[in-house]
Amino acid sequence: MKEKLNIIKIGGNVINDSSELASFLKDFASVKGLKILVHGGGKKATELATKLQLEPKMIEGRRVTDTANLEVVTMVYAGLLNKNIVASLQRNNCNALGLSGADGNVIKAHKRIVAAIDYGFAGDIDSVDNNIITSFLNVKLIPVFCAITHDTNGQLLNTNADTIASEVAAAMSNNYDVVLTYCFEKNGVLKDVDDNNSVIENINSETYKQLKKENVIFEGMLPKLDNCFNALQKGVSKIVIGNPTVILNKNQKYTSLKL
Amino acid sequence: MKEKLNIIKIGGNVINDSSELASFLKDFASVKGLKILVHGGGKKATELATKLQLEPKMIEGRRVTDTANLEVVTMVYAGLLNKNIVASLQRNNCNALGLSGADGNVIKAHKRIVAAIDYGFAGDIDSVDNNIITSFLNVKLIPVFCAITHDTNGQLLNTNADTIASEVAAAMSNNYDVVLTYCFEKNGVLKDVDDNNSVIENINSETYKQLKKENVIFEGMLPKLDNCFNALQKGVSKIVIGNPTVILNKNQKYTSLKL
Repeated sequence: MKEKLNIIKIGGNVINDSSELASFLKDFASVKGLKILVHGGGKKATELATKLQLEPKMIEGRRVTDTANLEVVTMVYAGLLNKNIVASLQRNNCNALGLSGADGNVIKAHKRIVAAIDYGFAGDIDSVDNNIITSFLNVKLIPVFCAITHDTNGQLLNTNADTIASEVAAAMSNNYDVVLTYCFEKNGVLKDVDDNNSVIENINSETYKQLKKENVIFEGMLPKLDNCFNALQKGVSKIVIGNPTVILNKNQKYTSLKL
Repeated sequence: MKEKLNIIKIGGNVINDSSELASFLKDFASVKGLKILVHGGGKKATELATKLQLEPKMIEGRRVTDTANLEVVTMVYAGLLNKNIVASLQRNNCNALGLSGADGNVIKAHKRIVAAIDYGFAGDIDSVDNNIITSFLNVKLIPVFCAITHDTNGQLLNTNADTIASEVAAAMSNNYDVVLTYCFEKNGVLKDVDDNNSVIENINSETYKQLKKENVIFEGMLPKLDNCFNALQKGVSKIVIGNPTVILNKNQKYTSLKL
């Protein structure tokens, strides 16, 4: 039987509130067994871009990462956020190792080109090296990934943290029994977006199809859940979606996804 | 007999010139055997601080790292510079792993307090974990250190890169036959500061005393060389001081320090 590995992803909402982040990291440090953290960006990058008077570039509602903005996210995600998260985890006796996808060549990606649109330095993941991540776990290190990857040709790439979490989870399923937990601002996938108690506790491939047909799954949730089922198909045992306290408290409601 | 390990330190002068940096990293990638890179800061942090309208704070001619400036150096050293150096090394088929002292708890430091002067978030090194660095080397990773450490209590600290190089070299001497190379803008320690050909090729503890007595060693070089002899006393086999091309071309003149 494979050893259990928890992969936990936090987004900007946790990172933006320093006391919420401190509380989460304390909880994360006390999660038993093997674990990996993946963190998103948060408002700090936007704040820095504004201070530097960089204009946000959007194409069809999506932010485009130009050279100046890539510098900003590299500084904020891989520098400021990643190293402060690592230092906070060390304070909690959790031997964290901060990583971008370039470190150890762990996550290879390519610059996204969709049809004629150049999204700038945004990366789509090609592969994750599960062996090198396993070698970190073997020496009791806790990998902490920021949302920066590279193209193996010297180019750093801004990459969606949800996707990093699911691709790392899928790759690690070769070696481990992986549970992937997405922490976000709601208690789980909700039947009624405005009611945080209306958590759909279990979703599988069949009920997911049904929920989509009934338009119960709201729009922003669709790519997230498609991404999740993709990871389950690639071997991830279970995916949990809930608020940040779900990593320790399993008595509360949350959404559990299985194939 | 211990296996040989090259530890190479580059400073701001190499980092500030992108083509010089690219050329150096290509050379570094082709250095045979086990190796570690330590990099300093460069002008990018000062540029960012200026753009953000932060006033440089100086006490008795030394820069003081306040909270805002610590954020800047964390972003630039651990984020922008470290990750771009790692990505460039990956391009050259060198499997680099970017590290701050907080990652893997590799370098523990404390906030510097000298007499009544608070230098802000500047770190003096307490210890280096040679075992965890060895575990990286064992899986064919090339550690790349930036000049950020931590105090194990959640605080990141701005730390002199020369000192990081010498302390890492000293600690690694427990496991390896370490040669530490400082690359800087001159060809070595010079008899005549204005003549780049006046390299003093060999210095040992005895001749160092003599050179100091004769005031041949100029002022800025003194702490650097004291630091070097300290590392030699802690077990480093040899220290090389020269221009960046010295790492591949040993036919040129350079300064070699031994006890």
